[in-house]
Amino acid sequence: MWKNVEHIGIAVKNLNDSNKLFETLFNKSAYKAEEVESEQVTTSFFQLGETKIELLEGGSDSAIAKFIEKKGEGIHHIAFEVDDIYAEMDRLRAEGFQILNEEPKKGADNKLVCFVHPKSANGVLVELCQEIK
Amino acid sequence: MWKNVEHIGIAVKNLNDSNKLFETLFNKSAYKAEEVESEQVTTSFFQLGETKIELLEGGSDSAIAKFIEKKGEGIHHIAFEVDDIYAEMDRLRAEGFQILNEEPKKGADNKLVCFVHPKSANGVLVELCQEIK
Repeated sequence: MWKNVEHIGIAVKNLNDSNKLFETLFNKSAYKAEEVESEQVTTSFFQLGETKIELLEGGSDSAIAKFIEKKGEGIHHIAFEVDDIYAEMDRLRAEGFQILNEEPKKGADNKLVCFVHPKSANGVLVELCQEIK
Repeated sequence: MWKNVEHIGIAVKNLNDSNKLFETLFNKSAYKAEEVESEQVTTSFFQLGETKIELLEGGSDSAIAKFIEKKGEGIHHIAFEVDDIYAEMDRLRAEGFQILNEEPKKGADNKLVCFVHPKSANGVLVELCQEIK
């Protein structure tokens, strides 16, 4: 089952500058920053209701840097919390969706995550995530 | 105060096809469809937790059709529920954000809405909305 929008990822060139911008926009501080070395990204998070806004700055070879080169800064992906990521991956594969991971991988925030290719989802990079218990 | 992500708008070429696609993705039906003549769009809505996913198909001269021509199908905007849209518009203008509306306008779902220019917000088209009471 798909439960809610866990976070929305926004690709930015300069995390410090964008942090200030979104702090002013939301009139609220980021509640944490995190470096994810495996993905070559530094991130910061804002909480709005049950959804996090995640700003992502990428290293020069990262997927985020390539995204910005091609499309400019902006919304990069939407992540949905699901209750059984393995079952959802099986179901979506059987329905013909292209899943970018063989198996769920460990993401930030103690979660298992996988991605659906934007070509399968109307140009939207969709992340599924499930908390590790 | 910014409360939560009220909805995420996704620009699509063909609402019928995309409805089927997202129904399969979410394993859940759209709960309503709506035509917004003033914006030349037809829409359908999925509820995931406190956030709606809004699919948008636009008429040939609509902002949505122009967006797809330029960028392809994909995420078009994020809408945040605020508790006082007039106060937030004043605050953001004073902070130098470019607001695309002089005054809030009446949107779908009995809401007042306004938009922040993507140039002011890291390439993200941000909508503010507030329920009319």
